[in-house]
Amino acid sequence: MREPAPLSARVVVVGGDAAGMTAASYVRRAAPDAEVVVIERSPHTSYSMCGIPYYVAGLVADADDLVVRTPAQFRAAGITVHDRTEAVDVDPRARRLTVRDLARGGERDEPYDLLLLAPGAHPSVPDIDGADAYAEPLRTLDEGMRLRDRLETGPAVERVVVIGAGYIGLEVAEALVRRGIDATLVDRSPHAMKTLDADMAAHVEAALEGFGVHLRLRTSVLAVHGEDGCARAVDTDAGRLPADLVVVAAGSRPNTALAEAAGCRIGESGAVWVDDRMRTTVDGIWAAGDVVESVDLVAGLRRNVQLGTHANKQGKVAGMDLVAALRGERGAARFPGVVGTAVTKVCHWEVARTGLTSAEARHAGIDHAATSFHSTATAGYLPDPGTVEVKMLAERGSGRLLGCQLVGTGNVAKRIDVAATWCQLGVTVQEAQFLDLSYAPPFGGVWDLLQVGARKLVSALGLSPEL
Amino acid sequence: MREPAPLSARVVVVGGDAAGMTAASYVRRAAPDAEVVVIERSPHTSYSMCGIPYYVAGLVADADDLVVRTPAQFRAAGITVHDRTEAVDVDPRARRLTVRDLARGGERDEPYDLLLLAPGAHPSVPDIDGADAYAEPLRTLDEGMRLRDRLETGPAVERVVVIGAGYIGLEVAEALVRRGIDATLVDRSPHAMKTLDADMAAHVEAALEGFGVHLRLRTSVLAVHGEDGCARAVDTDAGRLPADLVVVAAGSRPNTALAEAAGCRIGESGAVWVDDRMRTTVDGIWAAGDVVESVDLVAGLRRNVQLGTHANKQGKVAGMDLVAALRGERGAARFPGVVGTAVTKVCHWEVARTGLTSAEARHAGIDHAATSFHSTATAGYLPDPGTVEVKMLAERGSGRLLGCQLVGTGNVAKRIDVAATWCQLGVTVQEAQFLDLSYAPPFGGVWDLLQVGARKLVSALGLSPEL
Repeated sequence: MREPAPLSARVVVVGGDAAGMTAASYVRRAAPDAEVVVIERSPHTSYSMCGIPYYVAGLVADADDLVVRTPAQFRAAGITVHDRTEAVDVDPRARRLTVRDLARGGERDEPYDLLLLAPGAHPSVPDIDGADAYAEPLRTLDEGMRLRDRLETGPAVERVVVIGAGYIGLEVAEALVRRGIDATLVDRSPHAMKTLDADMAAHVEAALEGFGVHLRLRTSVLAVHGEDGCARAVDTDAGRLPADLVVVAAGSRPNTALAEAAGCRIGESGAVWVDDRMRTTVDGIWAAGDVVESVDLVAGLRRNVQLGTHANKQGKVAGMDLVAALRGERGAARFPGVVGTAVTKVCHWEVARTGLTSAEARHAGIDHAATSFHSTATAGYLPDPGTVEVKMLAERGSGRLLGCQLVGTGNVAKRIDVAATWCQLGVTVQEAQFLDLSYAPPFGGVWDLLQVGARKLVSALGLSPEL
Repeated sequence: MREPAPLSARVVVVGGDAAGMTAASYVRRAAPDAEVVVIERSPHTSYSMCGIPYYVAGLVADADDLVVRTPAQFRAAGITVHDRTEAVDVDPRARRLTVRDLARGGERDEPYDLLLLAPGAHPSVPDIDGADAYAEPLRTLDEGMRLRDRLETGPAVERVVVIGAGYIGLEVAEALVRRGIDATLVDRSPHAMKTLDADMAAHVEAALEGFGVHLRLRTSVLAVHGEDGCARAVDTDAGRLPADLVVVAAGSRPNTALAEAAGCRIGESGAVWVDDRMRTTVDGIWAAGDVVESVDLVAGLRRNVQLGTHANKQGKVAGMDLVAALRGERGAARFPGVVGTAVTKVCHWEVARTGLTSAEARHAGIDHAATSFHSTATAGYLPDPGTVEVKMLAERGSGRLLGCQLVGTGNVAKRIDVAATWCQLGVTVQEAQFLDLSYAPPFGGVWDLLQVGARKLVSALGLSPEL
């Protein structure tokens, strides 16, 4: 064990997006004597990755609108940002990074007293012929800019195949249809959005097809063909799909190389293991954001969840612990874990989920009951009451809410935060049904739909409603 | 003490709306041998009182659309419904009600083994000259039907004065403007919606005025003038307001007469005191709905809160306890209390509140800090990000969330259920800031606005974020 780093120590952060810059900014404010250095591969810092599909759709005019703060702005705030610079190796004993200048070439050392690894994740490009050459990943702002540029100024794009029917794949397919482009979404899974149960995903699939997206599920991509640098077609096990452009949105894997080089423990999920203050198993090294795994508080296991919300919160916790570590203390904040809350908008439908799906609960061996029902977004007697499909599940015996999925039109998505709070705090369906939730005709029925679900589960589980 | 009522007992319910019919329906299902009798003053049962302004606006075509179940439907389900019948007296020793047949005249006795009082509330008509004769209360479906009939088929109505700037007053004033009628809303309070703090109410007032409603605050009505059965003008301490019609929406008072006649304890709020199984202090008598007071779980006192959500939940709890009482047992469900959650839509604005306002917290002597800030309903870079004004308060020392108010455009209202859950479960702002709430650009920023508020309160209260 080394002595606590002095307050004038050098804190180096690898990765200049949500987790890294949140931590760097916190350290900058709370430890004025520390030197704060950020190493970022791209020319950009702190941008909204989730906003990229909206930029591709043209709903966001300028890529700069997605950037919260530029490297220049961080520099003005006293943070040394080395953009277009990649950290390629680390020596945790010498507390030294090796970094490569991607703009001018050459490598150099960057010593650190404390190191935060927040290098994010990289797109999983399927290991198929031609994918590397002709399929475009879509994860970074640069990739989003290149895609939109291609759509707006390149040779006319009439047909696009999107590989991967997860959040980003769906959002991009929708964005393309909005631009008048024929979009086909291909996924080998039996249903879109693996984060939902199949019965709930069916509503999303219907919405997508109604909007004009061609869905090819249970379909594996075998090869991507192209010429002159442009895609021409995608071969699948269900035939050939012509395409002027192929976009890959098939998930992404945590960038664990540096953490592995440092000897940090890699968890069961394949992401970096950290404690609840974002410390890795290697002295002097923290990690946060898409590169780490988090405790799933419902299932009681660890998952790699790549979401900006977690990256921001983890960055805050890491920043506080880094500052505390400068004083030889532990940070005051802890990242408690996740329950798997996620929302998106698909065409006119809002899609929301939290906790476990039935499939996940079965897989985790949790005995449970589920209820699925139809509700409305407003009182049924108002014009256009909308539609909300609800699925909820609770644990047999305890009645603890395990998960909730909502798909519907009109003020649906943010209702999931109520169920997320219940999942995270271990609220039972017995308790949930008598909470004082809001009611007015423009917002639903007199029993909130989550409480309708809670009542159905109390009944399905044969629970006493005794609190 | 009498012996437990036999399962074949006669259960009588006074009041055929949310609380009464929920209880009656439960008893009907769970105790097939019991006789279930409902005494209802009006010709209607189980209708949405909250839907009346939308019916007046013409957004709901038919008054029947507001009726969940008619007396005939309840009768078909085996419940004896005496509509147009008023319970006028009760003898709790003899277990006997006196009821009056409002259609055919005459009184008779209705014996009971168990009695549920759910007679609701009646509008407070201000004690001013001419109000009884020329100002129309708006609480029941009949009153709503009369008002719409007057607007659609009576002599032309050009100018309406609405007395009372609470939820119903606002909704009715908006409904009138939607019909092309000049509406003036008068209230002696310094701000509209006393359930909000003045600073938050100011946003609602601006929305109302922008929509075309004339607001006269700090204005007391002195007299209502009329002739030939029609209103002509309202005299206020700020001058005369011409009016073809005057609507009173100045709150309502619980119908406690029967409970008082029975000797039931009336609580500090002026409503009927009940325990958490809806039992009054008189053996054999339960009460539920607008007539009772509930425990305010945040302030720790008792309030009379007249909302359909509570009436339904209390009716369910009362029904379960009535059935249990038939077996000499206690019901399995308990009504835990309220936190004062309420939402409404005013023009294009959604208004939501839960817990205590700053004014209420001060009045309750709770040391607290408040934060107010502006946010958006979507990510700021999307087109039309909407606007959300947020106010939150938390207790000094503990950090317990005490209350939240939201006023804004776009998916705002149901977010209050998250804060309501926090208030009801005693969640602290330290804990709230790290909950796994949802994020996607169409629904807000990467830190949910309630978590932005939680962070601000952690800071304002000088709390450690330690969980």
